[in-house]
Amino acid sequence: MKKYKVTFFPEEVTIEIPENSTILEAATQAGIEIRAICGGAGTCKRCKGIVKEGAYQIPSGYKPEEKGEILCCQTLIEDNLKVVIPTSSRITDTSILLGGDYSVEEFSPVLETRKFKLNPPEFGKNASDLTRLSQAIQKKLNTDKFRVPLSEIRKLPDLLRENNWKASVSFADLGTHYQASKLQSDDEDKDFCLAVDIGTTTVVVSLIDLKTGAEIIRRGQYNRQGRYGEDIITRIVYTTDKKDGLEKLQQAIMETLDMLIKEVSASAGIKPDQIMACTCAGNTTMIHLLLGINPNYLRIEPYVPAATAPPPIQAQEINLPINSQAWVHFLPGVSSYVGGDITAGLLAIGIAQKDEITLFLDIGTNGELVLGNREWLLSCACSAGPAFEGSETTSGVRAMKGAIEKFTPANNSKGFNYQTIGGEKPLGICGSGFISLLSTLSDAGILERNGTFNTEKIKSSHLREPDGERELILVDEKETRGGEDIVIRESDLDNLLRAKAAIFAGIRVMLGKVSLEPSLIENILVAGGFGNHLPLQEAIKIGLLPDVSKNKFSFLGNTSLTGAQLYLLSRQARENASELAAKMTYLELSKGNEFTEEFISARFIPHTDFSLFPSVEQ
Amino acid sequence: MKKYKVTFFPEEVTIEIPENSTILEAATQAGIEIRAICGGAGTCKRCKGIVKEGAYQIPSGYKPEEKGEILCCQTLIEDNLKVVIPTSSRITDTSILLGGDYSVEEFSPVLETRKFKLNPPEFGKNASDLTRLSQAIQKKLNTDKFRVPLSEIRKLPDLLRENNWKASVSFADLGTHYQASKLQSDDEDKDFCLAVDIGTTTVVVSLIDLKTGAEIIRRGQYNRQGRYGEDIITRIVYTTDKKDGLEKLQQAIMETLDMLIKEVSASAGIKPDQIMACTCAGNTTMIHLLLGINPNYLRIEPYVPAATAPPPIQAQEINLPINSQAWVHFLPGVSSYVGGDITAGLLAIGIAQKDEITLFLDIGTNGELVLGNREWLLSCACSAGPAFEGSETTSGVRAMKGAIEKFTPANNSKGFNYQTIGGEKPLGICGSGFISLLSTLSDAGILERNGTFNTEKIKSSHLREPDGERELILVDEKETRGGEDIVIRESDLDNLLRAKAAIFAGIRVMLGKVSLEPSLIENILVAGGFGNHLPLQEAIKIGLLPDVSKNKFSFLGNTSLTGAQLYLLSRQARENASELAAKMTYLELSKGNEFTEEFISARFIPHTDFSLFPSVEQ
Repeated sequence: MKKYKVTFFPEEVTIEIPENSTILEAATQAGIEIRAICGGAGTCKRCKGIVKEGAYQIPSGYKPEEKGEILCCQTLIEDNLKVVIPTSSRITDTSILLGGDYSVEEFSPVLETRKFKLNPPEFGKNASDLTRLSQAIQKKLNTDKFRVPLSEIRKLPDLLRENNWKASVSFADLGTHYQASKLQSDDEDKDFCLAVDIGTTTVVVSLIDLKTGAEIIRRGQYNRQGRYGEDIITRIVYTTDKKDGLEKLQQAIMETLDMLIKEVSASAGIKPDQIMACTCAGNTTMIHLLLGINPNYLRIEPYVPAATAPPPIQAQEINLPINSQAWVHFLPGVSSYVGGDITAGLLAIGIAQKDEITLFLDIGTNGELVLGNREWLLSCACSAGPAFEGSETTSGVRAMKGAIEKFTPANNSKGFNYQTIGGEKPLGICGSGFISLLSTLSDAGILERNGTFNTEKIKSSHLREPDGERELILVDEKETRGGEDIVIRESDLDNLLRAKAAIFAGIRVMLGKVSLEPSLIENILVAGGFGNHLPLQEAIKIGLLPDVSKNKFSFLGNTSLTGAQLYLLSRQARENASELAAKMTYLELSKGNEFTEEFISARFIPHTDFSLFPSVEQ
Repeated sequence: MKKYKVTFFPEEVTIEIPENSTILEAATQAGIEIRAICGGAGTCKRCKGIVKEGAYQIPSGYKPEEKGEILCCQTLIEDNLKVVIPTSSRITDTSILLGGDYSVEEFSPVLETRKFKLNPPEFGKNASDLTRLSQAIQKKLNTDKFRVPLSEIRKLPDLLRENNWKASVSFADLGTHYQASKLQSDDEDKDFCLAVDIGTTTVVVSLIDLKTGAEIIRRGQYNRQGRYGEDIITRIVYTTDKKDGLEKLQQAIMETLDMLIKEVSASAGIKPDQIMACTCAGNTTMIHLLLGINPNYLRIEPYVPAATAPPPIQAQEINLPINSQAWVHFLPGVSSYVGGDITAGLLAIGIAQKDEITLFLDIGTNGELVLGNREWLLSCACSAGPAFEGSETTSGVRAMKGAIEKFTPANNSKGFNYQTIGGEKPLGICGSGFISLLSTLSDAGILERNGTFNTEKIKSSHLREPDGERELILVDEKETRGGEDIVIRESDLDNLLRAKAAIFAGIRVMLGKVSLEPSLIENILVAGGFGNHLPLQEAIKIGLLPDVSKNKFSFLGNTSLTGAQLYLLSRQARENASELAAKMTYLELSKGNEFTEEFISARFIPHTDFSLFPSVEQ
């Protein structure tokens, strides 16, 4: 097979790849993370590159805007190439939400080490080493439901005799039984454990000392599955449409974890082999993909996953590069779209101890909502779409440096000023920027309540209609980092209003189920990266969040990781997690008309029913 | 590294081997099984061969009896060689005891298949596939102590949807919990299971239909560990003295099992992958070696094994070439020298149902003895040595074709006639032949009660003293198959009397512990290959077995295999096995003087105390 060399700029990384590969495949091989929201289908047009040298083949219909411009996913390599990948086509790693602190009341980790001093054998008392140890274990654990695996039995004879019949045994609680994971002479090793939050976009790991429960280090990375599509549905489709699709997605998350585990191990000066336990919180799709389980039925009615609460599995079963005897424990979830990450969030906010009614929101591509208290819990998921995550809008970007996060009214020709993350040249608009934009445009009368432009209020030079669709120029190309205008189209407005409407409608349906007035909600806790920069006032103003006292809101950051840490370190947390998952009633919003009706009403700014937004009405 | 070609005759098998290898190693590589009782130490001198062509190096002190004669284990290859291996140096495969029939009252195999019909999911009832199945399992098994492994969870989504929410699940009972070993649509596969008897000398497997419990086929082979030494102690020493010794022994038994599994699978027309469960009975050393557990402490005071009752392990953990999800279950043993094979024997004889006092004897290199009934059990092991197995005697052979199995008084010049297995030309004397010989020589007055020759009764031409030791010629070289005289020396007599004394002394110590008269024993059940050809009258006459009514004796064959079969097929048998092993009191004979005193008294024919043998006294 013929092979070509492809060099990527500005990195100047060169790789070799067989003919008929795409530039996207070459970039993946070179470790360059390119945006491919559509999973390489050629439709999102985010993966633009510029070929500076060499022959290539583009689809017949494609019209490049400048010389050499290509879509990486659609371009076949026919020569040695030199390719520039601009910043706007890259997934850049600037704002992964690492999460906050955690504390446990009673330290009882998922792998507990017990010390044993056995009676040495003598004539007439010649029970086997294993029998001797088993009797001691049974006494200490007060159960006969434990297993010592062959690997550890093999250590027994020499270890006991060389250490005066003392042994230290670490037990993993597998639910069905305790599994002796590690047998050593006297707990001499320094062991660690890992809490993992596997998000669709980002993955965060926290390395924790197994003896003290103290966190050593925490690191995050973008989920390498991003190269196969940014959202859950695109990835699920990839597993069915592509040969080895599931294997590739599994491999991508394992690469991400491998990278993170190497990174935290190196930083902490330990070997990955010293990591003896792991807990994992993730949405149901992410867990299916991690475990190599067909996720296709997650997106087919009636949306039933293979597993919401997978049993603990051994690290080596999925080639997780930690100690091969380590067990990986999963936070239990509820449904296809309310996963272990939400249960983790409920652990993090301590809902199992709360009498007051709480609304928990985790807003990403899917909005996952939980309403309730220690007694009862309702949950639902509403497909908000990725508009607030910077995708599926013309100038949307993730919350990275250069993203516009805020618009404010101003007496200039456009009617507003903007502010970017890091104060850099603007690159695009992130979720909080869009909320602020909708509010600002609405206040200025530029935006109608139904999400269309009021052209009378807009200077004609700021409005154009490139593809038969109105587009408002927000920032001129000369001011921007990408050298393109930053704009908002009416279809973008539609996407944004649908997103906010979906979330608000979800809240309304849940409140309706229990006939609860919004004012009776005591706490509204917003998790996830979105919440971290959320302009609260504006979010209420556009009708994304309920119009209640601002004191009731808290923004929590990465509650999924915090929950995974608690699950790792506290038996009470593990018991709470099971109970919460079992107790949580899941409302399937796609069933019946309630959600649709609420959604249609919520597609206005702030809502068709102004009485729901008294502070906005004023 | 230089390599040489070695061709073995009469097979004419040629292999290539690096220089400085021994001829024994070359033979092993060629698949030729050579006797190496001493484990290749050069002391047993059983591995004679004749080099017909090529250069080689023998130890300086070695004096060959004929041109080219070498000891295979001591000869280094320095050239391409042609080597003849005579029959007398070979392990020949003629008389492996395959065992008899079995029947179980209630068919409840170690892997039980249950069928499930789940309620299909619908909107509002969207519990995950695993939750749905788990609830059904919990109801049917009436416990929440079960695990579905990742491999089977991966099958769930497609399998349930393609088969109208029906599934058939096979559960292995692991003691701590039930493990779902195999998930399939509707029990459509034909599955099998395997009962294995791992003896020091021979290995027997029985392939059984998992649905009916009917045996399909049974096959035996010599244990390939034989090349590293014929008895247990030699093999244990090999694991400590040789680099990778334990690995080699483990590999040898795996080769044996691999061969047998291929053989039974091919004969039955199935794939080894269809074998979904396995039970294994063996002595404690064999099980340590199979599992790769250091067996060294078995031979060091106070003789404490690593494990007498290993938990079930997965086939893939030891690379057993059956289905990788299959579990291997071990019959529990009691001590270093009373292993799972003896518990298997007790299952086979149904001692758990017996009120009458029973003596169970398994006589091999070690004599393993159990006395008791359903209420109480005593066990002990006495090192009889391999004299009755054809080793450590000048003309001893295994019970193969051509072995003298019987001597009878006659009016010829020697005073006796003999009879061989298969009526072939005599090759040597097997165990039953020796018992018959001792009795015949004793009757004829040739043999004194203390095991020395009465030279007055022997023609001088039949007696000689080659190495300063008296030797009685039993068969002249011209009559024999090997072309050598078949003889018995006084050191052979010593070995034989020590062997019979050890067993009888073991019986006496056990009877003494419970102050029981021999006449109160209701049954004497003799297991193993030895028992199958045992001349009962003569065995009593020489004082090997107690002098009770011959009606009380039964000879049972391979009870270890029968026990493994019962353990495989009956829950009651599995429960009985655990109880029997727990109940059995083990007497360590090497402790205290009782055994030594009994042993000294039993070293006479039949015994120093004639009153113990009233029928002989007459």
